[in-house]
Amino acid sequence: MPTYKAPLRDIEFVLHEVFDAEKHYQSLGFSDVNRELIDTILAESAKFTEQELDPIRHSGDEIGARLTDGKVVTPPGFTEAFNAYRENGWAAMSCATEWGGQGLPHSLMILFHEMAFTANVAWCAAGTLTHGAIRAIEAHASDELKAAYLPKLVSAEWTGTMCLTEPQAGSDVGLVKTRAEPENDGSYRITGTKIFITQGENDYSTNIIHLVLARLPDAPKGPKGISLFIVPKFLPTPKNEPGSRNAVSCGALEKKMGLKASPTCVLNFDGATGWMIGSPNGGLAAMFTMMNAARLDVGIEGLGAAELSFQGALAYARERLQMRAPTEPVCPEKPADPIIAHPDVRRMLMTQKALSEGCRALAYSIALALDTQDHASGDVKKQAADLIALLTPINKAFLTDRGLECANYGVQVFGGHGYICENGMEQIVRDVRIALIYEGTNGIQANDLIGRKLAGSRGKLVFDYIDQAEAFCLGNKFERLASMVASLQQHLKEWRQISEHILDAGKQGPNYTAAVAVYYLDYAGYVVLAYLWARMAQVAAEQLAKGTGNTYFYDAKLITAQFYFEQILPRTRSLVELVKASPASIMGLPEDCFGF
Amino acid sequence: MPTYKAPLRDIEFVLHEVFDAEKHYQSLGFSDVNRELIDTILAESAKFTEQELDPIRHSGDEIGARLTDGKVVTPPGFTEAFNAYRENGWAAMSCATEWGGQGLPHSLMILFHEMAFTANVAWCAAGTLTHGAIRAIEAHASDELKAAYLPKLVSAEWTGTMCLTEPQAGSDVGLVKTRAEPENDGSYRITGTKIFITQGENDYSTNIIHLVLARLPDAPKGPKGISLFIVPKFLPTPKNEPGSRNAVSCGALEKKMGLKASPTCVLNFDGATGWMIGSPNGGLAAMFTMMNAARLDVGIEGLGAAELSFQGALAYARERLQMRAPTEPVCPEKPADPIIAHPDVRRMLMTQKALSEGCRALAYSIALALDTQDHASGDVKKQAADLIALLTPINKAFLTDRGLECANYGVQVFGGHGYICENGMEQIVRDVRIALIYEGTNGIQANDLIGRKLAGSRGKLVFDYIDQAEAFCLGNKFERLASMVASLQQHLKEWRQISEHILDAGKQGPNYTAAVAVYYLDYAGYVVLAYLWARMAQVAAEQLAKGTGNTYFYDAKLITAQFYFEQILPRTRSLVELVKASPASIMGLPEDCFGF
Repeated sequence: MPTYKAPLRDIEFVLHEVFDAEKHYQSLGFSDVNRELIDTILAESAKFTEQELDPIRHSGDEIGARLTDGKVVTPPGFTEAFNAYRENGWAAMSCATEWGGQGLPHSLMILFHEMAFTANVAWCAAGTLTHGAIRAIEAHASDELKAAYLPKLVSAEWTGTMCLTEPQAGSDVGLVKTRAEPENDGSYRITGTKIFITQGENDYSTNIIHLVLARLPDAPKGPKGISLFIVPKFLPTPKNEPGSRNAVSCGALEKKMGLKASPTCVLNFDGATGWMIGSPNGGLAAMFTMMNAARLDVGIEGLGAAELSFQGALAYARERLQMRAPTEPVCPEKPADPIIAHPDVRRMLMTQKALSEGCRALAYSIALALDTQDHASGDVKKQAADLIALLTPINKAFLTDRGLECANYGVQVFGGHGYICENGMEQIVRDVRIALIYEGTNGIQANDLIGRKLAGSRGKLVFDYIDQAEAFCLGNKFERLASMVASLQQHLKEWRQISEHILDAGKQGPNYTAAVAVYYLDYAGYVVLAYLWARMAQVAAEQLAKGTGNTYFYDAKLITAQFYFEQILPRTRSLVELVKASPASIMGLPEDCFGF
Repeated sequence: MPTYKAPLRDIEFVLHEVFDAEKHYQSLGFSDVNRELIDTILAESAKFTEQELDPIRHSGDEIGARLTDGKVVTPPGFTEAFNAYRENGWAAMSCATEWGGQGLPHSLMILFHEMAFTANVAWCAAGTLTHGAIRAIEAHASDELKAAYLPKLVSAEWTGTMCLTEPQAGSDVGLVKTRAEPENDGSYRITGTKIFITQGENDYSTNIIHLVLARLPDAPKGPKGISLFIVPKFLPTPKNEPGSRNAVSCGALEKKMGLKASPTCVLNFDGATGWMIGSPNGGLAAMFTMMNAARLDVGIEGLGAAELSFQGALAYARERLQMRAPTEPVCPEKPADPIIAHPDVRRMLMTQKALSEGCRALAYSIALALDTQDHASGDVKKQAADLIALLTPINKAFLTDRGLECANYGVQVFGGHGYICENGMEQIVRDVRIALIYEGTNGIQANDLIGRKLAGSRGKLVFDYIDQAEAFCLGNKFERLASMVASLQQHLKEWRQISEHILDAGKQGPNYTAAVAVYYLDYAGYVVLAYLWARMAQVAAEQLAKGTGNTYFYDAKLITAQFYFEQILPRTRSLVELVKASPASIMGLPEDCFGF
């Protein structure tokens, strides 16, 4: 059973040594957010997630959330942990002081989320969805609605949900049928069925605030006819206490592959009272306010799976004795060598390690850019927004794909014991599997990247990023990095070429870009990680040159960077071929010739 | 929920049109096994698996096998299906007539197994393990033991198990501790604990025959000190009825990620009575008699997962309406187009299809070679044995890796609905996951391929296969195959080169081959499938040239072959880099520098 230990040294390395977080926060006006405060928050996050969340991850999976008489009961310890999260001030950390928050930068909340996702992903959704609801209400709701809902959501007395999906409307939210009929008092009556509603009902909070996509009676068809509504489980009283029960109820819980401790609800709205957020038929824009933050979070779920599985596999590989190392016995006094001595096992561990650390750097680069977008102005803000736009789909899809890959290595390192539930490794595979699907499937992320981001900016978002990475390469002064930097430069050049190839490929028709999108995203993901690994290697080389700090730590970074370049980056050799391949054979088979 | 429909047309295509099975059987002396009989067996296999096994796959997963008062209860329908399998003669089909079998070729049993694995893999183990036990007893046991056990095992009144693993001995069977102490009557007292024993206890059979690895008192350490014993649950009476209870009992069932309907037992042997099979300390050889057949079966479990997931995903992709196709509406009269119109979905479906059909051809090529090995002599027998030796590890690891890959596509095509248990797609992922581990992990298969098979034959096994494939290429006369054949030729040349590179690479040390083994196996798998796809394409092109048969069917084969070459085979571009890469960065990180 993996026991989560927050990798604080790795986290601090990326945050302080690679991205100079203190300077970042100070430049955005967070004068109190110095290294001491940051490290205290990290240490406390580690303590909370290791002590409160990790111990109930496996029992949560075994017991699962249950529905009894319309009420959800989460597994033992889940409510208590949520209470502690609320009472210790985690919930309100990054929220605006105006609504009772502590006004700390959003990225610090994301660092907390990373640890929480790793320790116990099924526990997290109530908190992260509540933050999504807060963001949407802050950005789009009237002052009256803000005053009524934000204080209770910020304090996490109440929790939030995102009600988008319906049986016939999944990736295609334009097919939403739920109706919203205006009442004379400015409210709306909401009627319809929503499915897959995470935390649609729970036992954590005294009220649940649903953000619901629905159609006005005169709405145009498709995505441009969708509006967003706030629909509380209990209508707030004038004193903002939960009042009378609204006409929304949980019809069933889904039985899922994983995330069993997190209730996934069928919600029935039977003329429930709601209020519009944002403009009529402007629901999609408001929804994306929630969705973008959620997409970063979901990517980090992938990172969490990779990290947790690595920690579990590493501990096991050091203990489990099977066969002798190919060279000579490592532990001649024991009946066999620990399996970490076997190159095939070590390759899996190194892959988990190199991907986890690389993915962490990618996620943090977006998290910090979110602060800049929120608190800077002018060109700096614009550049941050561009970076977020480019990297969000890559982060979501690439990190979750790699998270599933790494979780499977964890099972494989355990051998048959990995298949047994009580060892906790197979749970990671099951829990992370949904992350490749929800908040926009990874295929949809790829089409977002290649369509809205690459083609939509006529390449600018991508080329700006490549420019920045190329400038980094030119600045390298370390011999030990020379071959990595040379490889990175080749890849950046190639990334530019294939991006241009795709931009030019209009003549191949729209099927071409849709067909190669996932390959392009994967390619971009590997090159972005190569850039970030080169940056991490540079920092390590600088520290080694200075002779400060723990030599072993920085050497490990350099060896892991080398592993990334030699053993992982070559995956681009296939992807570049596939990006250039004609989609003819993908689309060539007539639909009724798939089976005979 | 996928509903299994045996792909008879595809099966017949490979069997008759590509491999000319009728001629194959006749040449081995099975004069009665003509096309009519073969097709009757296929049709009956389809009927049995579709009607008896498919309907209880999902309920079997939901209910699972249970242990009550030391007795295993399998889910509803499982015992009934096993009774039907026994009574309809499936169990005895390929067994020797001497012991009550029908004496049909082993490959026909494998065809039945393919369908059964696809329809309901959790149900299959009792049957396949019994066949493994029969093979081991036939090959290594005394006449007395044969007479006592084979008739009951052949009729499937009794079932068999393989008892290898112990808590400290998994991949490393040399660490087995179970003791076997000789008694004066020629029997042995077996004492020890075995884990992960599939069907170690069940409610299908009146007796269970365990084949147990154990050590004699004077046995040398390691794998050369292991002997194989037959240990029945009930000691047979002189009339071969189950007599007194032996001292073997089921201590617990494992809770597993999947295969929940198949009991996985902890077995305690407390001085149980057993008899030796084969020679003292010769247990490993006897065990491999069971293991090799089991490895082919496990590969086919991977094929089954790919096929079933494809069938489920295809049906769903035709029905599920979401968004419009990138070119123009396919179903303008409907609110959205079926998702099969989206290139990203179609890419996943085509990948499932091309891999399933390619993997089937690989599995059948081994199945037919098994007949030849069993029933031919001289060079023909030797060639078949060489082919089996080469292809068995490839088939086991490559088919299960691809099976897991394809099962995950199936979930992805279903989107959020793929994560919900009742839709049956996630079960395929969970069920197939163990196939990458048991009967020798895929890492062990790779080391077998690169060590025993490639290096052990000084390349001969590989180069003979390449020669055969190159001869095929030279014989191609079809313009439509020209680019595929050219690509195959390049790959065969490259396969030869990297094989020579590995054989020459002694100077890089034993860590090198162990580190690149999985890449080499994967590379070999893709090239073998390319060869088989080229052969299938050639048959299709011949039929189209003749103008016989269903043009659409043969065209579909050619388009799928083209897809394989354009969209799947390029995966070798990364693998060839990785095979050549130095293992330095894999082994470079000191063990205590993996975490700080």
